[in-house]
Amino acid sequence: MFEIAHVNGKLLKKADAVIQIHDLGLLRGFAVFDFFRAVKGRPFMVADHAKRFVNSARLLGINHSYTESEIIKASIELLNQSGLQEAGIRLLLTGGYSEDGFKQGDPNFIGMIEKLSPFVESNFENGVKLMAHHHLRELAEIKTTNYITAVQLQPKRLRENAYDILYYYDNKILEVTRSNFFIIKGNTLITPKENILKGITRKKVLELCKSEFEIEERDVLLSELSEADEAFLTGTTKKVMPVVQVDEIVIKNGKRGEKTLKIQKLFSDFEKSF
Amino acid sequence: MFEIAHVNGKLLKKADAVIQIHDLGLLRGFAVFDFFRAVKGRPFMVADHAKRFVNSARLLGINHSYTESEIIKASIELLNQSGLQEAGIRLLLTGGYSEDGFKQGDPNFIGMIEKLSPFVESNFENGVKLMAHHHLRELAEIKTTNYITAVQLQPKRLRENAYDILYYYDNKILEVTRSNFFIIKGNTLITPKENILKGITRKKVLELCKSEFEIEERDVLLSELSEADEAFLTGTTKKVMPVVQVDEIVIKNGKRGEKTLKIQKLFSDFEKSF
Repeated sequence: MFEIAHVNGKLLKKADAVIQIHDLGLLRGFAVFDFFRAVKGRPFMVADHAKRFVNSARLLGINHSYTESEIIKASIELLNQSGLQEAGIRLLLTGGYSEDGFKQGDPNFIGMIEKLSPFVESNFENGVKLMAHHHLRELAEIKTTNYITAVQLQPKRLRENAYDILYYYDNKILEVTRSNFFIIKGNTLITPKENILKGITRKKVLELCKSEFEIEERDVLLSELSEADEAFLTGTTKKVMPVVQVDEIVIKNGKRGEKTLKIQKLFSDFEKSF
Repeated sequence: MFEIAHVNGKLLKKADAVIQIHDLGLLRGFAVFDFFRAVKGRPFMVADHAKRFVNSARLLGINHSYTESEIIKASIELLNQSGLQEAGIRLLLTGGYSEDGFKQGDPNFIGMIEKLSPFVESNFENGVKLMAHHHLRELAEIKTTNYITAVQLQPKRLRENAYDILYYYDNKILEVTRSNFFIIKGNTLITPKENILKGITRKKVLELCKSEFEIEERDVLLSELSEADEAFLTGTTKKVMPVVQVDEIVIKNGKRGEKTLKIQKLFSDFEKSF
């Protein structure tokens, strides 16, 4: 999976990259992480990711002294060591080695450089189908490592031939398992604001679109899916990906819309300029 | 924390007991566990724990071929190797080494023998105070490793001088972070039935009490706390522990009740007879 890693600053090859089994990330799922891409050998939007990573750790209550600039520096060093131009960079900060299986220890800081799966161009062109599932992520605004529901649902997702899972709760659309969700009505871009993990690609798309679209960050009702002209999701490896169906609801004509194409272009131009 | 461990059947000393960092238990919190005591050098109520462990793995969707008898055998072997008479036995089954950071691999089976903290007799005699918190555990009926909310709340628990945290949701009492909750009204033992992890000690206490008490397994409203004559919690390391206060609500006279004492005696006799 990964090519090279560090654990607490020590550079390690895959087989040597281990943690002891009484780490609180393993024993109690108590850890935060972040994931971003390397583009042209440099970490893409790394300042935003480092900020979110440090913030997630603070909100969860992991006591640590890493600064954003140390996080960025460690990521760049690890990426340089890997020699990869295009890659995924995964960072974790765990609750550390626990004395009693519950109390926090000194946090363990882990970084790994991963080869990315090839992008499937047809998904970006034709759009994808999502499967809806009633779920509100625990501590949704913190990027914890808790994906038990998402991993558990994979067999069902495959049976339903869905690309990913769209969470909703109390009739409100929230987010996709590892990405954010947008609908377009007329010239208005609408995306959930609360009870979600705010993505870095989401933030960039809102920024790139604000001069060309009306923006509404607000509760999005499930019933609005059938009123939407277009829909898409955003994420580190999803970039801007059209959504053409959710369960049995086909968005408009079931094809990628013109406005989604325009937003894909805006994001792609931004990435090229990086 | 632990004395001796095995990873996939291989006996290891503490320093050597490691897993690679792309285990899905660490990366995605995708793992189940169980925890039980050794009493007089033998695993206590191990058949129930092994059954729950295998069942948790099945419900979460971890593909594995371990049988209950293999789980019991591995636990006994590990305990014998430790040479300890009284100890904690922790078992984990994780989603395994993931190719892409999300898909399951072959599960990793981990066992460890831990020295237990000394039992604090005054808690069993005087009872403890709990702090209430609005929370429903994700996949509550599966013993996953997800304790992020419980670990996150520890500083608040300490500030409030509470022994542990009582979860409630929509005005219904559910469970304590790692134990089950009971109230007594008259001669009736009342305990939540749904949206909880059903403890092995809970099961044994219900069994031991059924000839001497009326039993109600049902929704328990928060408002019933102030109507209760007594309250207690049950768990592997808590055994039967009186609860005398929840936030500002003092249960009856704030002292351990006679019926709780009787149930403690029933459980203690059962343990002595083991």
